[in-house]
Amino acid sequence: MFLENYWYCAALPHEVDARPLRRVICNEPVVFYRDTKGKPVALEDRCSHRQAPLSTGEIRGDNIQCNYHGFVFDRDGACVHIPHQDTIPNRAHIRAYPVTEKWGFIWIWRGEAAKADIAKIPHLPWTTDAGRSPVYLYFYVKANHQLVADNLLDISHADYLHSDTLGSKSGIMGGPQPEKVEFRTWQEGDEVHSFRKLTNVEVASYPKKWGNFTSNVNRTNIQMWEAPNTVHVHLEFENNENKILINHDHIMTPETDTTTHYFMDFTRNFGLDGNQYPTDDEIYQEQHSVISGDDLPMVESQQENINLCKGVVDVPVKADKLISAVHRHLADMYLAQDISVPSYVLVQR
Amino acid sequence: MFLENYWYCAALPHEVDARPLRRVICNEPVVFYRDTKGKPVALEDRCSHRQAPLSTGEIRGDNIQCNYHGFVFDRDGACVHIPHQDTIPNRAHIRAYPVTEKWGFIWIWRGEAAKADIAKIPHLPWTTDAGRSPVYLYFYVKANHQLVADNLLDISHADYLHSDTLGSKSGIMGGPQPEKVEFRTWQEGDEVHSFRKLTNVEVASYPKKWGNFTSNVNRTNIQMWEAPNTVHVHLEFENNENKILINHDHIMTPETDTTTHYFMDFTRNFGLDGNQYPTDDEIYQEQHSVISGDDLPMVESQQENINLCKGVVDVPVKADKLISAVHRHLADMYLAQDISVPSYVLVQR
Amino acid sequence: MFLENYWYCAALPHEVDARPLRRVICNEPVVFYRDTKGKPVALEDRCSHRQAPLSTGEIRGDNIQCNYHGFVFDRDGACVHIPHQDTIPNRAHIRAYPVTEKWGFIWIWRGEAAKADIAKIPHLPWTTDAGRSPVYLYFYVKANHQLVADNLLDISHADYLHSDTLGSKSGIMGGPQPEKVEFRTWQEGDEVHSFRKLTNVEVASYPKKWGNFTSNVNRTNIQMWEAPNTVHVHLEFENNENKILINHDHIMTPETDTTTHYFMDFTRNFGLDGNQYPTDDEIYQEQHSVISGDDLPMVESQQENINLCKGVVDVPVKADKLISAVHRHLADMYLAQDISVPSYVLVQR
Ligand code: FES
Ligand code: FES
Ligand code: FES
Repeated sequence: MFLENYWYCAALPHEVDARPLRRVICNEPVVFYRDTKGKPVALEDRCSHRQAPLSTGEIRGDNIQCNYHGFVFDRDGACVHIPHQDTIPNRAHIRAYPVTEKWGFIWIWRGEAAKADIAKIPHLPWTTDAGRSPVYLYFYVKANHQLVADNLLDISHADYLHSDTLGSKSGIMGGPQPEKVEFRTWQEGDEVHSFRKLTNVEVASYPKKWGNFTSNVNRTNIQMWEAPNTVHVHLEFENNENKILINHDHIMTPETDTTTHYFMDFTRNFGLDGNQYPTDDEIYQEQHSVISGDDLPMVESQQENINLCKGVVDVPVKADKLISAVHRHLADMYLAQDISVPSYVLVQR
Repeated sequence: MFLENYWYCAALPHEVDARPLRRVICNEPVVFYRDTKGKPVALEDRCSHRQAPLSTGEIRGDNIQCNYHGFVFDRDGACVHIPHQDTIPNRAHIRAYPVTEKWGFIWIWRGEAAKADIAKIPHLPWTTDAGRSPVYLYFYVKANHQLVADNLLDISHADYLHSDTLGSKSGIMGGPQPEKVEFRTWQEGDEVHSFRKLTNVEVASYPKKWGNFTSNVNRTNIQMWEAPNTVHVHLEFENNENKILINHDHIMTPETDTTTHYFMDFTRNFGLDGNQYPTDDEIYQEQHSVISGDDLPMVESQQENINLCKGVVDVPVKADKLISAVHRHLADMYLAQDISVPSYVLVQR
Repeated sequence: MFLENYWYCAALPHEVDARPLRRVICNEPVVFYRDTKGKPVALEDRCSHRQAPLSTGEIRGDNIQCNYHGFVFDRDGACVHIPHQDTIPNRAHIRAYPVTEKWGFIWIWRGEAAKADIAKIPHLPWTTDAGRSPVYLYFYVKANHQLVADNLLDISHADYLHSDTLGSKSGIMGGPQPEKVEFRTWQEGDEVHSFRKLTNVEVASYPKKWGNFTSNVNRTNIQMWEAPNTVHVHLEFENNENKILINHDHIMTPETDTTTHYFMDFTRNFGLDGNQYPTDDEIYQEQHSVISGDDLPMVESQQENINLCKGVVDVPVKADKLISAVHRHLADMYLAQDISVPSYVLVQR
């Protein structure tokens, strides 16, 4: 069971093109296509007639036609044509999901259609800011979505998992400590925030290249989690040489309890001329390689251990304050929707 | 649980050759081999001694010898030799299935051996008719056998799924309608029949080639389903230029609840001289490509949707009369055998 | 559930090298590495913090560091460092297993650490005997460990499964019988023994090559099973031309209920000069090919049949006396540990 009455990120716009796209979202098969105006449509990917996926069918104007026996459905899921038959039974209609394209992602609403307010979509205004350039990524992950979120909510893992690319090597046993660590976590309505600033730390190899830094920097992470499962990261690297800004946003949508559609934008204020390092392509390659190479194998191996060792719980540390706050808040949200709290939420409180 | 006291199609004759064949039928492992007279034998593929498959053993005359410790079993499943031991315990005997070769298929009987009357094997006399030529096919399908049967019982899908090869493009939204459709369904004992005639329809590309048709035809489908799961299709294409006849028979045997052994003959009255199109080989290629390319991906994707969306039911239309009649009859048959009606039968009534 | 308070064979020494080794033992993930003195360490392969496998971490002197957020654990499973934190909660400690290297294998103790007496490790003194040369093998088997043990406990299968390499072709239906078979089985404490001597039998092709035999031999098998799952085989081939001795020991460790880590030594008193046949390499190749080619496909296909046909039991014969004795003893041992007897033990009594 998944939280209802939220927008879930479903696809990158280019994935919904001339052919319908099938994607399982929260255990439900959904077909995405575009109508004649280019607006995305999201229907149950299961023909009411005999359970064929509509995604193997044909887009007919604003409608989609099942390729098995030709039932036709409109954008609202209404069955509008049954071959060789004039009457259309009510139960031939299928579920349509409110769907919209915003900030470079396609979002669907799970829950009561009447409540589907597009103002509730996570705000990513930097993606459309003139002084910024967003790069978009999609990953398919063989692990629960919350494990991916937990990965993003703890900034401390960068020092180990990404020690060659993004880490500051702070906190290593017997190693140098940063001069000062500021860390605060707070909640605002349905959002959980954290602020973490490391003063005078060695700059990791990637931000070093991005900002042409030659000496230590102050590194600021501002993170915000919002339901159902988005993590916003605002990142600054600064010293007397330069200051660079990055917003990266991570939106994890459950496919099933143990698999995840993971969407991301990486929006920077540097390397914008398109010729010099880092270009959009180079940023894409760097991010893809770090996430596919470091983070996803890690969360997938956590999932394997969790499968093997039923009932294990985490031992939260200070750096997990944000994770614990999110898990506590999530537990409340599930209970408020009369859904029993999933084990992957209870694992850390 | 599967229906008992029926012949199930188990193999094509050439599959049972010098080496024993293992095939799981209705969740039971069966080994097939030929005795010294070339007659097929069907035994439980599980040595009574310690569960080794006999199919990796050796055929010894009329018997088969387990390759693990040398137990020998005869055609009736009797254990006739235990190495280093004179007495053979009663429980060393294994199950033998009545088995016979007829109409180009090998059939086994599940149920009480005393009731295994070969007259109860589905009748396919056209396969041995002098003016006809049968082509045989076998497919392994990752879907429930009833989904395959339903595919065959609704002739209407040809217009969509096989629109390039076998369909008449009738019934398409806003498209031309055939002058007249006749459609009748009726039951006779354990058989369910249907008759469907489309008058003056565009001829699909395959039958056009088969019959050298240049203009519209009348297309007649006579279908008959019989238990446990055979679909006979008698097909005629006719106009003032030519008339061709085809019988194709489809026999679906459960391997498990979600996988199927699918056997087929395609028996035609044209292209019989072996040199001109269509030769047996060409017919084999055409049928193999249509079924593997169109039908099996469809039923396998229906199975995926059914796995994902437990408890869904169909919305039958007029063209499904035959399917519904078969499902209703099957439900009665399961109840008559004190078997709870499987969900894949209840999905459409 | 598996028997506790026993040493289980976990790895070959060369498998635990510069990188940590993950191996699932009795359903538990375990990480193996060597401390600065080269002694093996075995810890739960699951970081207490957030379930990451330690095996993807780094060895730091005698300790191991989790690669996710840098928790450090010592050889006893004590958490000795949490980055950015001074206090270490008690529940941050993880399980350490008593572990030792002996007779060419690495062993871990499952159960109460206080009872982990290395004298209880199976005795394999021939592996260190000056006049002998041991060859070590590891196999991963997709079958229950008891099926592998049963394979080794019945010497009779060699005549069929290994008829080309190790069998004596005795007991074949209608074939020649050995002049005399002696067979005795007895129990001593927690050990089950058997003695089997075939007089004047044809020598199989492998021992024929090993001992340069040109005529029939007397073949003696002395076998000893000990808990939880080790099978010792002492083998002699003798006639007036030559006499050769082999000890081969087989240690089966459950990975899960249906997968097994299978370790083996083959220790011979011939071909020791390293140049002439059989060299260690040739012995390795022969054994690997017989076991991978004959035995493992057999036990894996037994497992498939057992999965398919729930609740089946064996029909033991005289040659199974040793197996039955072992199963009876195992059933008692499970009950003594208040563990319900697993079906793979009950299958044969
Ligand atoms: S399954 Fe879609 S029209 Fe029949
Ligand atoms: S398992 Fe067949 S003879 Fe032993
Ligand atoms: S999971 Fe190991 S340190 Fe966090």
